[in-house]
Amino acid sequence: MSTDKIGTYKFVAEPFHVDFTGQLTMGVLGNHLLNCAGFHAEERGFGMAQLNNIHYTWVLSRLAIELKRMPMQYEKFSIQTWVENVYRLFTDRNFAILDAEGTPIGYARSIWAMIDMKTRKPADLISLHGGHITDYICNDKECPIAKPGHIKVNDTTSIGEHRALYSDIDINGHVNSIKYIEHILDLFPIDLFRNKHIHRFEMAYSAESYYGDTLSFCREQKNEQEYDIEVKKNGNETVCRSKVIFQ
Amino acid sequence: MSTDKIGTYKFVAEPFHVDFTGQLTMGVLGNHLLNCAGFHAEERGFGMAQLNNIHYTWVLSRLAIELKRMPMQYEKFSIQTWVENVYRLFTDRNFAILDAEGTPIGYARSIWAMIDMKTRKPADLISLHGGHITDYICNDKECPIAKPGHIKVNDTTSIGEHRALYSDIDINGHVNSIKYIEHILDLFPIDLFRNKHIHRFEMAYSAESYYGDTLSFCREQKNEQEYDIEVKKNGNETVCRSKVIFQ
Repeated sequence: MSTDKIGTYKFVAEPFHVDFTGQLTMGVLGNHLLNCAGFHAEERGFGMAQLNNIHYTWVLSRLAIELKRMPMQYEKFSIQTWVENVYRLFTDRNFAILDAEGTPIGYARSIWAMIDMKTRKPADLISLHGGHITDYICNDKECPIAKPGHIKVNDTTSIGEHRALYSDIDINGHVNSIKYIEHILDLFPIDLFRNKHIHRFEMAYSAESYYGDTLSFCREQKNEQEYDIEVKKNGNETVCRSKVIFQ
Repeated sequence: MSTDKIGTYKFVAEPFHVDFTGQLTMGVLGNHLLNCAGFHAEERGFGMAQLNNIHYTWVLSRLAIELKRMPMQYEKFSIQTWVENVYRLFTDRNFAILDAEGTPIGYARSIWAMIDMKTRKPADLISLHGGHITDYICNDKECPIAKPGHIKVNDTTSIGEHRALYSDIDINGHVNSIKYIEHILDLFPIDLFRNKHIHRFEMAYSAESYYGDTLSFCREQKNEQEYDIEVKKNGNETVCRSKVIFQ
């Protein structure tokens, strides 16, 4: 079992994973980040597979990604991940996205809870894995981006709808965390991505949605570059919120 | 440069790449197959990047996948690919999908053309790469599934529509080949995937669609297990056809 506190994983930006500008899509980057979180935890004995055996699972609560630039088609890059903090009910996991030379081109922050799959109640992280999760806290690795902030969408006019279909649903029977990212970015006209790139992207997950749910999307423009989005299911319950800052 | 005729590439079924039953999705498998085609061609000097330099590009015409079973979440598997034949205007490329022990769990066949990106006209494959592409023809590797067949959808009633959005569009400005697979499978109720698995899946690509195009989907049930689908853009032109055989 690896005791190194920082995990590093290599990737290449595949052709079907880039958008029309040749940049890796935010959904694919999010997928890679979550996979790295999984690899890192698994290698240290507190991954999904190990937790599933004891009826616990990790739940992603918040994700914030900030980028100088996205990897381009066929570009090699790597992702580093480490645990910044462990609290009783949450843990902070950070990421650095590095180009092929090892220079950071972006960072990300994530917040995770653990729940008991039977009771759906949060579990005590400090006692997890015999208390050993705290051994992996890495205090000396910098993550120079702001923590996920509070997102509030005042505009209640739906600007788009999507019925959750087969391709949206993950192994837990929920709309998968990455699909929300795709659906949210699909609210924007393609020309916006031609002229600008996403500088910062945040997701705050609050409830699960399921097959057949109708997702509706409200969006509020905060300033010239910044948009907040709220995703509701079946007209009322908030499923997630997102902030997109273009540059 | 590798001269081995068969390329072998390793994968693992990632958590966000499996459906609600834990099986790898057909879209992700399709993506892996096309990537393997790219790796294999690139390693032998006739990949996209090399062709782009001379203003040619590969165009996928047909894809047929037949499976005993799909890889399951976290399962390691590999994909082998090789060139079965090269004709003047088309080349046949086959695939085997192997489990971690190297036992085949599925096969695929694909048909590709090459076009001149300036004139959009097909190019002569025999003369490509100094005629060396034919050196890679592999006659002795078996691909025991039927070739892609003719797909004809008589029912002209649209059962679904999708407007092509940002996430659908690839670096060429077209709806990406994999997204059609997702949209086609989203036509089926989720219960079908609970009780059956896809035994055979075919795609026949005939035209490109673009951002903002409205894709409409017609479906004809051929027998209890078999469905043909036609995707049209903006109400008239056929973009692609698909056959899905459940088991």
